[in-house]
Amino acid sequence: MGEPGHGTWQVRAVGAVRSGLTDIDAAPRQGDEGAPAAWVEVFSEVASAADGVAVGDRLVLLTWLDRADRTVTRVHPRGDDTLPLTGVFATRSPHRPNPVGLHPVTVTARDGLRLRVEPLEAVDGTPVIDIKVELGPPGRR
Amino acid sequence: MGEPGHGTWQVRAVGAVRSGLTDIDAAPRQGDEGAPAAWVEVFSEVASAADGVAVGDRLVLLTWLDRADRTVTRVHPRGDDTLPLTGVFATRSPHRPNPVGLHPVTVTARDGLRLRVEPLEAVDGTPVIDIKVELGPPGRR
Repeated sequence: MGEPGHGTWQVRAVGAVRSGLTDIDAAPRQGDEGAPAAWVEVFSEVASAADGVAVGDRLVLLTWLDRADRTVTRVHPRGDDTLPLTGVFATRSPHRPNPVGLHPVTVTARDGLRLRVEPLEAVDGTPVIDIKVELGPPGRR
Repeated sequence: MGEPGHGTWQVRAVGAVRSGLTDIDAAPRQGDEGAPAAWVEVFSEVASAADGVAVGDRLVLLTWLDRADRTVTRVHPRGDDTLPLTGVFATRSPHRPNPVGLHPVTVTARDGLRLRVEPLEAVDGTPVIDIKVELGPPGRR
């Protein structure tokens, strides 16, 4: 710690993706590239954090891409070797020092602590670390 | 661990906010509610991850809100006691089990590993845990 802004912290799964997508190599790169609907299971330890999440809500899911390579700092964007090596902070590569995935989704059904969302390119078993409501315009928050 | 999707992981600061905003109670709730420009200092350990980040880029900064209360699961949205208690997953409260902040910003200058960005409501010293480029439409990625 010491200098402001430095440090490490523990991040803990608050839910998990339950999806028919199981093959990471076959998954779309982004939700809007043909990803299916999936379930997000909110864990019972944080059940009340999901109070008020309702069908029709636009959410941003944050996942922990636990199969990513955290040592990677540069990639060929979209895995295309004809594109020059680029810092991962200028890309959406899953491989990065803290492999957090960002997924804008719509809630289409809710069954207790299970939220049906779409579209979601994350594969089955991906840990969910946070859920936020999408921000509307400043006058409607 | 054990069951798929469960677990805890270490998240590590990759940069920090350097801002004239120092009083968390005086900071805007969201960037588009009057937040100023600020610097993001990318730490030298991950310098090459910032290769290709350029003036004009639209980025999404992810911060770790290290002053948040991680035990909170329900809040009055926007701190307004007249609004009913709501699960934090249906809000943008900083208080939540994993206090990750999401900040859409534009890069207005770059000086080595320092990125000038705006607007940014995060206060001085806030740890940055990830930086992503904002997704354009599907045909332009």
